[in-house]
Amino acid sequence: MQHCAYQFTIGGHMDGPLLAIDRLDERPVVEQIVEAMRDAILTGALRPGDRVASTRVLAAELGTARSSVVSAYEQLAGEGYVELRQGAPTLVAQLGGRTDAGHGATDAARRRRPAASAAPAIERSPAGRAERTAGALGARPAPRLDLRPGRPSVTRLDERAWRSAWRHAAAAEVPVDDPPRFGEPRLRAAIAEHVRHARGFACDPDDIVVTAGTSEAVGLIGTALGDRLGARPLVAVEDPGYPNARQVLARAGADLVPIPVGEHGLRLDALRGLDRPADAILVTPSHQYPLGGRLPVAARLDLLEHARRTGAVVLEDDYDSEFRHVGPPMPTLASLDGSTADADAAVEARENRRVVLIGSFSKVMTPWLRLGYAVLPHDEALRAAIAVVREESPSPVPGIVQLAVAHLLTTGVLRRHIAATRRDYAHRRKLVLAALGDLPGTQLVGLDGGLHAVLRLPGHDAVDAVTRRLDAAGIAVARLDEYSASAGDGQPGIVLGYAGVGDRELADALALLRAAVLAAPAG
Amino acid sequence: MQHCAYQFTIGGHMDGPLLAIDRLDERPVVEQIVEAMRDAILTGALRPGDRVASTRVLAAELGTARSSVVSAYEQLAGEGYVELRQGAPTLVAQLGGRTDAGHGATDAARRRRPAASAAPAIERSPAGRAERTAGALGARPAPRLDLRPGRPSVTRLDERAWRSAWRHAAAAEVPVDDPPRFGEPRLRAAIAEHVRHARGFACDPDDIVVTAGTSEAVGLIGTALGDRLGARPLVAVEDPGYPNARQVLARAGADLVPIPVGEHGLRLDALRGLDRPADAILVTPSHQYPLGGRLPVAARLDLLEHARRTGAVVLEDDYDSEFRHVGPPMPTLASLDGSTADADAAVEARENRRVVLIGSFSKVMTPWLRLGYAVLPHDEALRAAIAVVREESPSPVPGIVQLAVAHLLTTGVLRRHIAATRRDYAHRRKLVLAALGDLPGTQLVGLDGGLHAVLRLPGHDAVDAVTRRLDAAGIAVARLDEYSASAGDGQPGIVLGYAGVGDRELADALALLRAAVLAAPAG
Repeated sequence: MQHCAYQFTIGGHMDGPLLAIDRLDERPVVEQIVEAMRDAILTGALRPGDRVASTRVLAAELGTARSSVVSAYEQLAGEGYVELRQGAPTLVAQLGGRTDAGHGATDAARRRRPAASAAPAIERSPAGRAERTAGALGARPAPRLDLRPGRPSVTRLDERAWRSAWRHAAAAEVPVDDPPRFGEPRLRAAIAEHVRHARGFACDPDDIVVTAGTSEAVGLIGTALGDRLGARPLVAVEDPGYPNARQVLARAGADLVPIPVGEHGLRLDALRGLDRPADAILVTPSHQYPLGGRLPVAARLDLLEHARRTGAVVLEDDYDSEFRHVGPPMPTLASLDGSTADADAAVEARENRRVVLIGSFSKVMTPWLRLGYAVLPHDEALRAAIAVVREESPSPVPGIVQLAVAHLLTTGVLRRHIAATRRDYAHRRKLVLAALGDLPGTQLVGLDGGLHAVLRLPGHDAVDAVTRRLDAAGIAVARLDEYSASAGDGQPGIVLGYAGVGDRELADALALLRAAVLAAPAG
Repeated sequence: MQHCAYQFTIGGHMDGPLLAIDRLDERPVVEQIVEAMRDAILTGALRPGDRVASTRVLAAELGTARSSVVSAYEQLAGEGYVELRQGAPTLVAQLGGRTDAGHGATDAARRRRPAASAAPAIERSPAGRAERTAGALGARPAPRLDLRPGRPSVTRLDERAWRSAWRHAAAAEVPVDDPPRFGEPRLRAAIAEHVRHARGFACDPDDIVVTAGTSEAVGLIGTALGDRLGARPLVAVEDPGYPNARQVLARAGADLVPIPVGEHGLRLDALRGLDRPADAILVTPSHQYPLGGRLPVAARLDLLEHARRTGAVVLEDDYDSEFRHVGPPMPTLASLDGSTADADAAVEARENRRVVLIGSFSKVMTPWLRLGYAVLPHDEALRAAIAVVREESPSPVPGIVQLAVAHLLTTGVLRRHIAATRRDYAHRRKLVLAALGDLPGTQLVGLDGGLHAVLRLPGHDAVDAVTRRLDAAGIAVARLDEYSASAGDGQPGIVLGYAGVGDRELADALALLRAAVLAAPAG
């Protein structure tokens, strides 16, 4: 196929930087303009205060509709790259400038909250640390820029559809019961469809339990497993791994056994080597948390075989797999579970499914909603145990939230939101790669999917130096050693969420981070 | 003051029953008409199919605006007492008749939900019972009439204000963090004001922790107490008492010691007689759950003194005290705590407060919202421990729910709703008293406040016989022995929620219950 790239001036002067548009690029022209402009601004080819080509001029040069250019400029303005001024030339915006735009307000603007709402609790953060919890009831200054993992972007959220979903939910009759134990039927059906569409896993609405996010799902199932066993369950967890899940499991009465993580995620050899086989295995096969490894299909099948043989339940934490940047998505453990080429064995295999698939709307929408789900295998004893836990303590998920999100799912709003957000994240991921991919003595991992990256550093001294410098600039990141299952035994590195901040703030922070790493002790 | 009562015919004929209106009655005329008509219908003075006086005639007789009579009739129609027919006389409705009215749809109509949402989980129910949990994932027929306690009425909910609150919440910016650990600042401020207004207890927004209802509050504080002690806390609980609270506390790692309940609630002599003093005391002083006793002020002060002396934390579960039918409300333990006539001792007393006041919006609005709160004493160690638990597992209360309820609180919608609902409940309470107050061999207790009553029966055989008969009629009630802390050791009786059903359904069920009790074994 012939490559037809055109270049056009995008600055306000004829000697300005050039914009390359590829007619064979499958991306819409608007998106190509946006991306090219972003790159020009982020690389400094266009600087704050520079005039950009008028929409009329650029549309003429591109031979495209002026409305496309207007759309692109509006999007860029919404993201804070340019300033649109009525009747005056469009300028490249000051960094950290206007944040009062409407639909396109930057994440930073949205993130700004009254001081009293500070002391942000982050989902995937190490917990129980004294400096985080001291004075937690009072106000505490939030970081200027929060790059800790777990924060998505909502700038692409269709605000009209969002309001419509809540209007719809508020118009429904108000029941006087607790929310249904396993969730509102409409939401369970919508989640089953979402899982089928987003993860290619065919499940039934009856298999769904609605939860208040991943933590609550893990706690609920951990508690139910203990009840079913009549003893403290032994749960294998990834090391490093999600600290909150470990804490919640321990609260639920589980004993934990850490399993080391390799390049491709959970190390099955270590799992097999346990003296006593685990009753449950908590695993993040699609994007190991936090290191980002991906469990190959063969290893997935081995893990399932191991679980079947030992009777273990597999808790598949599928926390961010809607966002895959490199390579095709891999089948969930849940969909591999019970699949067999042997027709005679198929029914038995289905009945012996061992995987609980755990998902959440924290990453694809916002953790502020506290909504997640678990897809249960056909394990009646487990389901009955979950029902008992839910009867002792009602489902914490308000019915009205369930109705509103069911509406967002069934109307396709969430699907479109994920698609739009995925493009933003892919772009931010590129910024991370460009800024940190080539630093000597470091290793940048975990970027194939999701919303965060890990920068391995040569030693803990380097981590201290880098985080001190970021902290002084008001930039928060997480330390890799905080994810270690055994205190004082963590790997040196930092974990960086790149989703929940605007491109320009991110580029700014990455430049600072790059400088800090280059200046840090070599190990 | 002179008493000026007037009587008017309210039937369609001049020889119909008379309606007494008292001009000095402080209640609005509309309310007096409604109440008089209800009584006439419920006592059988007006029967299904009877014509009632036209609004024109009745307004003329009363010398009141016709619009008042129209309002009264519309309310009665909404409650299912009468049928308004365009251009035709208004008739007394068939029992269980129309339920499709708009604003005034009966609770029964609202309660009707798709079959798949059945298996209603009720908050204040005994748990873990096999027959409740079997097949819990599938559909299970709901009772025709649910008189188990814990179900409020939402027929008086101002639907426009409700929708407006959600519209308001959905228009707010969407944060990309977890909800704040202790709650959205706006809601914490609104709850502090609500507690001051509804319970006369002055607290600070900083003292509030927002929770997913009472269960979550009890679990959160139980867990935090264990962390603070570094050991399993011993928690004294009322017997009989709230089963879910016991289960949640046990899950939170507490050891429980049941304390018997007397006519006035928790028996302090039994509390004082414990070999090892409890680390915490869970008590329902305003309306003992389920028996309804009220702890006198002297006993409240003694309880606080005991707690101070032993270092115990008092968990004051104030679950339904917004609804007081007989006598003035009593001060909360929380407001008595730290109060002293001695000015020198005041500061120290405040600093040594021991009471956590726990409230919820389940009774004043609906448990479907899963929203409650705890008001914390000035106990920094406890607050820090709660912060740690909330960091391990984020607050389960969606931010948007917090914003919507803050709006309902600050706009006075909830206050008006409580006032309107209180009148309905007072009326339903009278129906219960009239139907069950004089049954030989039984004792009707717990009716001074709240949303439920207890009918003590002569023996468990009588309970079996009565519940069998109700069950056959599709009417669900709770057994008193299900609230016992020790299995197989409960008192004979039934617990009856009278709030969440329409007057006529309630009257119908009460008649059946009365007949069942009269026919039951004498002991």
